[in-house]
Amino acid sequence: MSATAKPHLIAVDWGTSNFRAALISPAGEIENELATTRGVSSFARGEFAPYLIETCKGLGANTQLIYLLAGMIGSREGLREAPYCPCPAGGLDLALALTWVIPQRIAIVPGLRNGTDDVMRGEESQVLGAAAVLGLTEALIVLPGTHSKWVSLEGGRIAGFSTMMTGEFYALLRNHSILAKSIAPEEHWDEPSFLAGVEMAMQGASLLHSAFSLRVKFLFNELKEQEASSYLSGLVIGEELAAMQVEPGLEVILVGNTALCERYALALQHLGAHSRSLGTQASWMGLHAIYQQIKL
Amino acid sequence: MSATAKPHLIAVDWGTSNFRAALISPAGEIENELATTRGVSSFARGEFAPYLIETCKGLGANTQLIYLLAGMIGSREGLREAPYCPCPAGGLDLALALTWVIPQRIAIVPGLRNGTDDVMRGEESQVLGAAAVLGLTEALIVLPGTHSKWVSLEGGRIAGFSTMMTGEFYALLRNHSILAKSIAPEEHWDEPSFLAGVEMAMQGASLLHSAFSLRVKFLFNELKEQEASSYLSGLVIGEELAAMQVEPGLEVILVGNTALCERYALALQHLGAHSRSLGTQASWMGLHAIYQQIKL
Repeated sequence: MSATAKPHLIAVDWGTSNFRAALISPAGEIENELATTRGVSSFARGEFAPYLIETCKGLGANTQLIYLLAGMIGSREGLREAPYCPCPAGGLDLALALTWVIPQRIAIVPGLRNGTDDVMRGEESQVLGAAAVLGLTEALIVLPGTHSKWVSLEGGRIAGFSTMMTGEFYALLRNHSILAKSIAPEEHWDEPSFLAGVEMAMQGASLLHSAFSLRVKFLFNELKEQEASSYLSGLVIGEELAAMQVEPGLEVILVGNTALCERYALALQHLGAHSRSLGTQASWMGLHAIYQQIKL
Repeated sequence: MSATAKPHLIAVDWGTSNFRAALISPAGEIENELATTRGVSSFARGEFAPYLIETCKGLGANTQLIYLLAGMIGSREGLREAPYCPCPAGGLDLALALTWVIPQRIAIVPGLRNGTDDVMRGEESQVLGAAAVLGLTEALIVLPGTHSKWVSLEGGRIAGFSTMMTGEFYALLRNHSILAKSIAPEEHWDEPSFLAGVEMAMQGASLLHSAFSLRVKFLFNELKEQEASSYLSGLVIGEELAAMQVEPGLEVILVGNTALCERYALALQHLGAHSRSLGTQASWMGLHAIYQQIKL
């Protein structure tokens, strides 16, 4: 079978709380996309495959298709557990490590492990996609989110990475901690408060201490309820950048939700670092890159 | 009125979730004690004073009494807001800064502020009590807890302090984070796992990253569910000690809950630092020290 005679790809990013799928031509053109909120956590065991086939009919393709699934669908709670692939890993390594659920039809892309120190599922496809879209083989790629990933791309492969639980800490502190009573329930954006949070985090030795500054500033009328969520966002993102030793002149590729990438870009710029941002559709190009390495 | 003719003291430590009171002679003998779970958060406005008088009848004193109240009872949510006293502050400073609710009868001990960077309410009395009990004028006194306090005692006065939200982060991560599903619901104590957590925290740049190691170790069968709460405890306490730059040879006085002080002592010892521990009854001697400075 020649490369051009390959069937179309159904690329699926199936996370804990969302399902996204795209129909992609062998040459890499995105012909159709859809998204639902049927993440992995919304399913009981055994319903994954029928949902996948039925939902992807909505993409309008009726040829023989290959499905590549990335994300938490490959975890113990998903369709089938796909063992983590060790770093360093690129498109070919992932293609060789696929877990085929139905041979030549449905495969799960393994997550990556960094030794036994860290893991990811789904982000590997976004990183390889970002590299493909930007034509990069060496880069520091950051995926902000609930669990941010800082990924080193070397020679076109993922050499290593670190997870930072930044978004989760933000939600914990915002919703469940003593700080909640100093934070307005609705989200407000206030750039000076955000940057004040970044500064405080850069000065402090730990979020254990700097987080308390939100409460203290509120008590002394130095921070209003409406400014507090931006300040907290600055504290956790600042802590992340400090821990990752961001310095002036550093170049970062941000991949993810646009609003969140804008916050990171602002904090990075404030510290003299540079960034470019890409949306999460990068994962389509990553799954396509893996697909190109599959020998059918 | 001579010092010996002073009335007995009712010393009260009235926090968010507990009420503790002691009858203390002018010479500093603790004659009786009681405790209830009627913390400040369990009251509607206006019920504090009747509860105080009624409950303290149980201490069995029927002479003219002076009540000194420390803790969150002096916050906006308490009996009356007692403005924070600035550092440095010792017993005399606090005696001069009392907020009298009923003159010569019921007074609230102010909390302390470290510039406008940090605050405490109640811990000042424990620190002064520990200093009195141990006969110290220079010390590093640590009060582990939901919000740990690291206090510098200089010349017998509190020179400054830092809050670390260690206990609160532990509870947030244990109960509300993704880590919860890798932690057995019941508490287990496992010293090697605790010390492994301390080590991991000392190596890492931030709890944002080291906390994720609990999940990863669980996935790779390097940590059992029953060991995970001890590991997490080590992670947060280790982060606190790293942030406070604990080094071999450091001398620390621990004041607080016995089991928690034992964990801190173990972690400090593991890092080559030394500690002595005192219980929270230290606050009685602190309130007595303030009382001795009052001119009636």
